[in-house]
Amino acid sequence: MYPNCVRNLIDSLKDLPGIGEKSAERLAFSILNFDKEKIDNFANALNDIKNIKRCPICNNITDMDKCYICNDTGRDNDTIFVVEKPKDIVLFEKMGNYKGKYHVLDGLISPLEGINPEDINLESLINRVKENNVKEVIVVLKPSIEGETTMQYIKKILSNYDVRVSKIPIGIPMGTDIEYIDSMTLEMAFEDRKDVA
Amino acid sequence: MYPNCVRNLIDSLKDLPGIGEKSAERLAFSILNFDKEKIDNFANALNDIKNIKRCPICNNITDMDKCYICNDTGRDNDTIFVVEKPKDIVLFEKMGNYKGKYHVLDGLISPLEGINPEDINLESLINRVKENNVKEVIVVLKPSIEGETTMQYIKKILSNYDVRVSKIPIGIPMGTDIEYIDSMTLEMAFEDRKDVA
Repeated sequence: MYPNCVRNLIDSLKDLPGIGEKSAERLAFSILNFDKEKIDNFANALNDIKNIKRCPICNNITDMDKCYICNDTGRDNDTIFVVEKPKDIVLFEKMGNYKGKYHVLDGLISPLEGINPEDINLESLINRVKENNVKEVIVVLKPSIEGETTMQYIKKILSNYDVRVSKIPIGIPMGTDIEYIDSMTLEMAFEDRKDVA
Repeated sequence: MYPNCVRNLIDSLKDLPGIGEKSAERLAFSILNFDKEKIDNFANALNDIKNIKRCPICNNITDMDKCYICNDTGRDNDTIFVVEKPKDIVLFEKMGNYKGKYHVLDGLISPLEGINPEDINLESLINRVKENNVKEVIVVLKPSIEGETTMQYIKKILSNYDVRVSKIPIGIPMGTDIEYIDSMTLEMAFEDRKDVA
């Protein structure tokens, strides 16, 4: 029904998360109206993305030997934010005031799914803490059984070192009406309650 | 904050309709997890799409000299569905029982936006009607001022030929609750009312 090249483009667009047949058709037809330069840029961007590597220090994505954060001598090695995915780093960098480093686990421990501690990027975290005299590891993982398990595991493996292992509290996001918050979150937030200053 | 190639991919994804910065970031990071073959397919599909031409007869998209519908000798030349965009053809082909031809206008007459009859693909419609002894032209355009104007114009320019010019009625889509239908549609549908058979 479609010319082959249009069909192929629709199929490729359907590989994207949340894009079904109808959306892919809509997107493909919009690309048909792009000028050639725009299409070239898109195709080149896809080809270039294949050169993305992981930073050997923190496991962030990078197109250089080290990622730009690990390369930045102005940032201190005292603190490490431990995150699940490279994308999480961007969120913290958007805060703008954090000047420490990161560590990307690339997954969470999940015995149910057969993901064990050795399957995620944990060993190099121990080495970093050891070698750089890190003072604080702030674990920022999705509040979930897997996140909690991973957090506890990190606390355990770092217990032999003189490093604080901290976490971000479970709570209610800014501007969110309480009625949209599930009871589990409220229960956890209640446990983490603080005195009004 | 992102490696250049990731930034470029995000920017290209943002060229797509309905994709903002946040969605583009999400899509780009999912592409980072594609295997190389999948990325190659995507990039190749984009490059191939630049070869898409228009059918010289009906103005449908095609990667051949003529589109597959105009090439199909099993289809009759008696009826022509006039549509706005190549994508509209797919919708009618999905019905499965239409065996006539199509004609893609690539736009609607809109004096307000400075789109005049000569700016859309109308002249070749007259030639097709003349040369192929077409019996019926079914105009299926978006119900709107532009659609109505274009429809009236087509009726006028074909009035010298022995051809029926018909349209699809304005009405309520299958399974749609009346409360979601605007009053203009209801008014038009009321005017088009038919006896219950």
